[in-house]
Amino acid sequence: MKKAIGVFDSGLGGLTAVKELSALMPRENIIYLGDTARVPYGSRSAETLIRFAKQDLEFFFRQNVKAVLVACGTISSVALPVLKEMCPVFIEGVVSPAAKRAAQITKNGKIAVIATNASIHSGAYSRELKAINNGFTVIEKACPMFVPIVENGYFGKDNPVAKLIVKDYLSEIKASGADTVILGCTHYPILRPLIEEFLGGGIALVDSGMEAAKEVCEHIKNAHEEQLEGTGKNTYYVTDEPSGFTALAELFLNKKIEEVKKVSLDDDN
Amino acid sequence: MKKAIGVFDSGLGGLTAVKELSALMPRENIIYLGDTARVPYGSRSAETLIRFAKQDLEFFFRQNVKAVLVACGTISSVALPVLKEMCPVFIEGVVSPAAKRAAQITKNGKIAVIATNASIHSGAYSRELKAINNGFTVIEKACPMFVPIVENGYFGKDNPVAKLIVKDYLSEIKASGADTVILGCTHYPILRPLIEEFLGGGIALVDSGMEAAKEVCEHIKNAHEEQLEGTGKNTYYVTDEPSGFTALAELFLNKKIEEVKKVSLDDDN
Repeated sequence: MKKAIGVFDSGLGGLTAVKELSALMPRENIIYLGDTARVPYGSRSAETLIRFAKQDLEFFFRQNVKAVLVACGTISSVALPVLKEMCPVFIEGVVSPAAKRAAQITKNGKIAVIATNASIHSGAYSRELKAINNGFTVIEKACPMFVPIVENGYFGKDNPVAKLIVKDYLSEIKASGADTVILGCTHYPILRPLIEEFLGGGIALVDSGMEAAKEVCEHIKNAHEEQLEGTGKNTYYVTDEPSGFTALAELFLNKKIEEVKKVSLDDDN
Repeated sequence: MKKAIGVFDSGLGGLTAVKELSALMPRENIIYLGDTARVPYGSRSAETLIRFAKQDLEFFFRQNVKAVLVACGTISSVALPVLKEMCPVFIEGVVSPAAKRAAQITKNGKIAVIATNASIHSGAYSRELKAINNGFTVIEKACPMFVPIVENGYFGKDNPVAKLIVKDYLSEIKASGADTVILGCTHYPILRPLIEEFLGGGIALVDSGMEAAKEVCEHIKNAHEEQLEGTGKNTYYVTDEPSGFTALAELFLNKKIEEVKKVSLDDDN
């Protein structure tokens, strides 16, 4: 039995990281957990988020995974230190890899971060960037409607609602002179074409899920834990009914999903 | 100690019912519970909703209330029979009162219902209306973005995002010839000015929270349980941090809120 890599998020967003991870390491088994009974995470308090995150992580302990990718910008921002303390295997979130990448590619040192309310409120991205280079100018913007529009299918390139909301949230960033924008929530790559069109050329976007996937891949290779043969299998777990998840998930992953199972994370049922 | 009336919802929406109830019975104490750690309810499965609803109701048992208003269209649609069985005091949801009112005022027998995915999927409003008059034509439309836009402050009368989404969801209803529209989710009255403007004159809107408040008021008077003197006090409980709740709640209620307390509903912490 090949040990899997665990990837989790509040809902669908983390699938953007699964897609990257599968592309980088097609032989690996991946177990995905979407806490769809409690999505969205981005508007919750730190205390609530830490409680949810611990339950998410405990699920992977029961699955005996070899590494965990926290494919949720909010949990990565708010709860990663707590999760690192309790996790016996390698665990990485999306904040640090995205900050590193942004620091590498910025030319003018002006970096914008877009993420959920909770992520922005935590200041995690800003702290990571300043720790790399205290001279960076960091522009932070919470975009609380981005997750609902993605989860409700308002993400087509010409969708007028999505266009208005993108303009609403990103005008400030466009005007700021930032040359690099971190997509600090794993739902946001779904809106990438709209964001690129609005911001125009010359601004680099950093996909935080993709950068985290690269980091996990590097760790697994360095630790000589990668699968050298066979084909990886992806298994998906959700906390609410799978039916609502599958259709959108296939759109995110751009492939058919074979199996989605329902799982309970809390102790009250 | 005056026994209170319990009112609950997933988040802020049920406050529209609190406002009505306070206007009808200003001497009553009202305890409001918003399950803000798990909002929104409208996209969850029936099984998950019943679990959440039981926990919400058990909170009121501990508060020893004299009646419960389920100010959530989704729970009223999906879980009310289960809640009625376990509840020792009077309990009413928003579906039946709204259906009764719509049946009274429709002239052409064409009634539209707008609500969350879960409410529409349950068919509860349609069943209630058909039980009153099987000849009614019922047009049902799920509006899953209405709760997120309200919870994120996109509800000003001229808000372009709200206008687009209202048009997106209600064009079908406008074209259907319905003369009565049930606002089947307690968040929706916040969008009432936008909905009225889009639908135009000659279409009556039924506010499900308001109708439920009237029903609870009537029960309390008939049972001679009303407060005859003094001024009622409203106490607000939420399951996530109160800070995010208070500002929007004051906007909903159009008055200052004195006290918001945090409470835990599940057994895992």
